[in-house]
Amino acid sequence: MRLAELSRRGAVSTATVKYYLREGLLPPGRRISATQAEYGEEHLRRLRLVRALIQVGRMPVAAARDVLAAVDDQSLDQHMRLGAATWALPHGPQPAEDDPAVEEARRTVADLLERLGWLCGTGPGEELSPAHHGLVSSVAALTRLGYSCDAARLLPYARLAGELAVHDLDRVEEYDRPAEQVEAAVAVTVLYEPVLLSLRRLAHVQESRRRFAP
Amino acid sequence: MRLAELSRRGAVSTATVKYYLREGLLPPGRRISATQAEYGEEHLRRLRLVRALIQVGRMPVAAARDVLAAVDDQSLDQHMRLGAATWALPHGPQPAEDDPAVEEARRTVADLLERLGWLCGTGPGEELSPAHHGLVSSVAALTRLGYSCDAARLLPYARLAGELAVHDLDRVEEYDRPAEQVEAAVAVTVLYEPVLLSLRRLAHVQESRRRFAP
Repeated sequence: MRLAELSRRGAVSTATVKYYLREGLLPPGRRISATQAEYGEEHLRRLRLVRALIQVGRMPVAAARDVLAAVDDQSLDQHMRLGAATWALPHGPQPAEDDPAVEEARRTVADLLERLGWLCGTGPGEELSPAHHGLVSSVAALTRLGYSCDAARLLPYARLAGELAVHDLDRVEEYDRPAEQVEAAVAVTVLYEPVLLSLRRLAHVQESRRRFAP
Repeated sequence: MRLAELSRRGAVSTATVKYYLREGLLPPGRRISATQAEYGEEHLRRLRLVRALIQVGRMPVAAARDVLAAVDDQSLDQHMRLGAATWALPHGPQPAEDDPAVEEARRTVADLLERLGWLCGTGPGEELSPAHHGLVSSVAALTRLGYSCDAARLLPYARLAGELAVHDLDRVEEYDRPAEQVEAAVAVTVLYEPVLLSLRRLAHVQESRRRFAP
């Protein structure tokens, strides 16, 4: 397809498509004349992923480029490639050093992961993952604000998160090719976050009605 | 306690406490002299909640004030008061009008709520809740980006959200007084969102290892 059709099917302006091409977020098309290029379904898929990252995930262009570089890194096996791609997604703030609440949160998270038998805190070279840092930060925030939060309390949330992950990766495995699976994993991670938070708030209303309505 | 102790125990500067008092985010203390006031445990609890809203939830002062007004509204029954307080929390963007993806998402969400038997889409006066709008927007974003998303696909996520809500409201019911319960509901809603998203990303790594690791 030509750029105009790619723009129409991806529901973004041609100016935006050209901007993404210039920024390296979309690979160049196949040149068919001095002024025209041909684009394929893989460009359309990539365009949608870029929109998911930038428009829904509100990621800066540089961060989106890092995620896509990991998506395209064929030197990794599939597990590592999925990990690298979601590793590059934005996460919450890094936990502060020398903060007693952070030290306590680190112990809580270590205790939790051990109870779950999850080996997921670390990535290549045993470096702690951004998701691990994010969890430590948010548990520390709870503690600091006087809402104590130990591993026993986190356990049911982690078990439910594990069930969510099964559904998420079922969606990913609906795609056949490894490259499409990695793209889908990134898109599902980012796009289902607001879905999940809205569903939880709706469920609060339902559960509050059940318990407290007169 | 005096302002200095409130500031120390709430882990914010005295300047910040004075700012929150001026902005009406904290109720005034009991005046004990021309220059001094006395604060109670309820001030400390409120100070922590304000920090949760502003520092973790990144809410503007005006939005935090709206949430607190709902928390303090004693004219409502407990279910309505919980609803009003979380209703005032910030949500995602409103769904666009005249967008076919939004129309489709509205039907999907209506279908989902019917299958679940949830009556939670509406609040006082049958107005659609912000959580309902947020869900429609995020389902529309999925559709627009080529990830189709029908009620059958959302159902397992909604069921898991329902289980999360049970745990969340168990935490809320650890508090005895209705006013404390409403404060806890707001804090738990805001503070557990980053916890949950980090846990989900950790669970992805674990599930990906199980499926894809060589």
